[in-house]
Amino acid sequence: MCRWLAYSGTPILLDTILYKPEHSLIDQSLHSRMGVETTNGDGFGIGWYAPESDDQVPAVFRDVGPAWSNRNLREIARHVRSPLFFAHIRATTGTAVQQTNCHPFRHGRWLWMHNGAIADFRRIRRDLALAVDPELFLDMEGSTDSEMMFYLALTFGLEKDPAAAVERMAGFVEQVGHDHDVEFPLQMTVSVADGERLWGFRYSSQGQSRSLFYSTAVETLRQLHPDLAFLREVSDDTRLVVSEPLGDLPGAWNEVPESSYGVVEPGNDQLHQFTPQAA
Amino acid sequence: MCRWLAYSGTPILLDTILYKPEHSLIDQSLHSRMGVETTNGDGFGIGWYAPESDDQVPAVFRDVGPAWSNRNLREIARHVRSPLFFAHIRATTGTAVQQTNCHPFRHGRWLWMHNGAIADFRRIRRDLALAVDPELFLDMEGSTDSEMMFYLALTFGLEKDPAAAVERMAGFVEQVGHDHDVEFPLQMTVSVADGERLWGFRYSSQGQSRSLFYSTAVETLRQLHPDLAFLREVSDDTRLVVSEPLGDLPGAWNEVPESSYGVVEPGNDQLHQFTPQAA
Amino acid sequence: MCRWLAYSGTPILLDTILYKPEHSLIDQSLHSRMGVETTNGDGFGIGWYAPESDDQVPAVFRDVGPAWSNRNLREIARHVRSPLFFAHIRATTGTAVQQTNCHPFRHGRWLWMHNGAIADFRRIRRDLALAVDPELFLDMEGSTDSEMMFYLALTFGLEKDPAAAVERMAGFVEQVGHDHDVEFPLQMTVSVADGERLWGFRYSSQGQSRSLFYSTAVETLRQLHPDLAFLREVSDDTRLVVSEPLGDLPGAWNEVPESSYGVVEPGNDQLHQFTPQAA
Amino acid sequence: MCRWLAYSGTPILLDTILYKPEHSLIDQSLHSRMGVETTNGDGFGIGWYAPESDDQVPAVFRDVGPAWSNRNLREIARHVRSPLFFAHIRATTGTAVQQTNCHPFRHGRWLWMHNGAIADFRRIRRDLALAVDPELFLDMEGSTDSEMMFYLALTFGLEKDPAAAVERMAGFVEQVGHDHDVEFPLQMTVSVADGERLWGFRYSSQGQSRSLFYSTAVETLRQLHPDLAFLREVSDDTRLVVSEPLGDLPGAWNEVPESSYGVVEPGNDQLHQFTPQAA
Repeated sequence: MCRWLAYSGTPILLDTILYKPEHSLIDQSLHSRMGVETTNGDGFGIGWYAPESDDQVPAVFRDVGPAWSNRNLREIARHVRSPLFFAHIRATTGTAVQQTNCHPFRHGRWLWMHNGAIADFRRIRRDLALAVDPELFLDMEGSTDSEMMFYLALTFGLEKDPAAAVERMAGFVEQVGHDHDVEFPLQMTVSVADGERLWGFRYSSQGQSRSLFYSTAVETLRQLHPDLAFLREVSDDTRLVVSEPLGDLPGAWNEVPESSYGVVEPGNDQLHQFTPQAA
Repeated sequence: MCRWLAYSGTPILLDTILYKPEHSLIDQSLHSRMGVETTNGDGFGIGWYAPESDDQVPAVFRDVGPAWSNRNLREIARHVRSPLFFAHIRATTGTAVQQTNCHPFRHGRWLWMHNGAIADFRRIRRDLALAVDPELFLDMEGSTDSEMMFYLALTFGLEKDPAAAVERMAGFVEQVGHDHDVEFPLQMTVSVADGERLWGFRYSSQGQSRSLFYSTAVETLRQLHPDLAFLREVSDDTRLVVSEPLGDLPGAWNEVPESSYGVVEPGNDQLHQFTPQAA
Repeated sequence: MCRWLAYSGTPILLDTILYKPEHSLIDQSLHSRMGVETTNGDGFGIGWYAPESDDQVPAVFRDVGPAWSNRNLREIARHVRSPLFFAHIRATTGTAVQQTNCHPFRHGRWLWMHNGAIADFRRIRRDLALAVDPELFLDMEGSTDSEMMFYLALTFGLEKDPAAAVERMAGFVEQVGHDHDVEFPLQMTVSVADGERLWGFRYSSQGQSRSLFYSTAVETLRQLHPDLAFLREVSDDTRLVVSEPLGDLPGAWNEVPESSYGVVEPGNDQLHQFTPQAA
Repeated sequence: MCRWLAYSGTPILLDTILYKPEHSLIDQSLHSRMGVETTNGDGFGIGWYAPESDDQVPAVFRDVGPAWSNRNLREIARHVRSPLFFAHIRATTGTAVQQTNCHPFRHGRWLWMHNGAIADFRRIRRDLALAVDPELFLDMEGSTDSEMMFYLALTFGLEKDPAAAVERMAGFVEQVGHDHDVEFPLQMTVSVADGERLWGFRYSSQGQSRSLFYSTAVETLRQLHPDLAFLREVSDDTRLVVSEPLGDLPGAWNEVPESSYGVVEPGNDQLHQFTPQAA
């Protein structure tokens, strides 16, 4: 299991979100409050969209040690500004601690990260792999359930209709799991982005999903906390989606309901029900 | 492409073979003479059978940096003694530099290492993977052609008849390659061991295989070089199989012929022809 | 701060002590009960005396990631047997996470590991360094207070009279600390070995030292726990010295008293008072 | 010994200089033509000034593996743009392969990198260390001669008068070396920057310094190579200082003369004689 955060809004130094909050993701790497494990030290990664780059492919920086002691992560966080970025800290559920198993995963313009697990993944992995589009299969490099979910979602049309593709992925994983007598095959919070929009999914076969929160509208926060200078510097449509709140600011965080997903895009945030579909 | 060596004989400090020879494997990691690349710095590994262990599973130590600067490798080499061990230095042909892609690979009592490549592997990888026994598939962790060859050979009966299984593996890889219009699908030198015997294979579809040598019988070497104290300390059946000679000692090294394989076991060394078989 | 263990006795697979106990050192790397930090994930190391080696220099294997996920550590532990070994898991108090800062440290036949800290070390480091014997100074590679303590103790005669040298080291650190207005300069549990004997020190300027325990005499343990087969396999003089007990076995563990040190050698264990001496 | 490059001019993706040239620094990591070693695989680093950051401290990204296989370096290079950056690939002359020994080194706004060696460094290291300002000494983390040279130069006033401070550092190293009967104590090419200016030094006690080159004025290059679109996109004052040319473009590269140094700043490049001074 893992912890993650996704940011969308005014371009900001990654540092501001990754290190500065009281209960930042870096703090969570040692002292997670809501995660299955207290410690998330089995690798980490960040992905960011860089307007100053030549193309729309986001940057991905991943490494295998704990985030809390990684100096390169701190350097990048203090010197890179981005309007849309992911960060993830990993606690492996058994697969190898290696860079190709660290989140976020990337395909073209798309980023993907995950907290949770496919139950009995080792046993059903082959059947899932067979369903991945052969062309996409070429690009799989790691051995995690998380990357498999990404490539299944890509196979099911993520780049055209992300929400529908994730619903089909979930439906397919549940079907294959049930075929192998797995009672509750899927447990997930997932974040997806394409450089302009950001999706956050919360679902589990058992209906007891890992925690997921989104930040309150900036306008509302400004009224609640007129003293916070930070809030005057970010645009109205700035949003965070996080595994657990970054601090105890009253009114700042809202739980994403069970079996639902949110879409964050400039001027238009939405929350929808999530229903796995037959693949 | 890579370089490797396999040792079988009198229990010996790994150091004696890994570091001390004039053109040792560690020297080859920076200055290979016969390899496709001069530098083999993309990870390394050793595997050794440890009589003092509780079971027959060999130890495997693998890491991602270059062998030449790895202090832990040097420590182990100076303090571990073994009658049968493998060592491998890697130059990746494209797959990720990570521990699960380093040789040797292990399955139960069996060790496997490889130099060479499956041509166009990325493109035919999926078809090869489908042929791996589903039970065995669970244990694959990396993304190399070398590990795939090992699991195909295991699928084809490596543990019962190693030579026949490797011939079927080679035949299958060639068949799948040809189905994808690959002219010369396979290039390999492979070493396999089970703790008692050692196999060395040399084969390529094109008939221009990577270099492979075996050491001359110790008795003959003693006559050629009566001054070498080292030779009096090792048993008559001690043998080395290597990608390239560890030095320039006259009469010490013999090339393994094209399309052939050798078996090293106490009191009985053999050299056979290698012919890929229909899987 | 850190956790460590030292073993002396019947040659044993490292695994037996490192991984198998209920609250093993590997478990402590994630879930320390008595340490200043719950997590000790900033590198680790083991040092072992290898009778099968050519000389008396112990092997040292150290790496920078967490011990809990390190596959090479597990491999070595399952395949190496030793009559005297150290293991250490690190939680940095600020210095870099790098191999040369991992314990144990080695000089010739001597091993050294430490839990604790020199207060305000960054500020007094230079004055301490000046006192290290210039010949010994050449061999210092890292930046920790622990390595500095080792080299000061070597300077003060560790190889001739270990206990006296550590007392002089402690006295010197306290003197330099006091010169810089540090109230409580030293906090330490230290283990030292030369391949035959093992020393364990517990001391702090404040008189509130980190926890340290030694195992009860094997003969007594056999009477307390006649059902434990393991106890029949180890010799009477087998001993463990540990930062915290490896399990809850009643009667198995005894606290090393404040300001004292123990010596473990075949047939003769002793406990003495520890008094820092003017250097 | 090592290889390095320094860039100053129009803000540019690091990729353009680090990876794209025919004989780029990444190519030099495997195939250096003018270096003492062909392979420079013992760690690497980049440092860049980031106008989008909040302060003037440059970012530093360093890692211990070879640059040629480092995916994070490639990611950063493709997504970070900077007007002034350093890149360095290392071939150790004996000190540990660890992040704190990788270049560039940083102090406040200042970056420093080095190719060469202090002769017999291990032996004179202590005497050099004693001369470092005690306040600065606190910040030294590694064990290289290169970092020592940096901290000596800082001690001798680098931040006020860089050229004079480097001359005093060189004079001091030579004096201490001669005191220890070292015939030719210093061999160096050094690059220094403060975020606005860039210095490149070439000197050795023996008068046979490692190679160093600077790029021809952009205006001249445009006349020589009117077909190169790249040259129309960078400003007139763009400059590169490199250990060896990045390609074979006629007229593009000029050797920095023995015992001299250059200063690169907008609109005013200079070349001066370098003469070690008594410290």
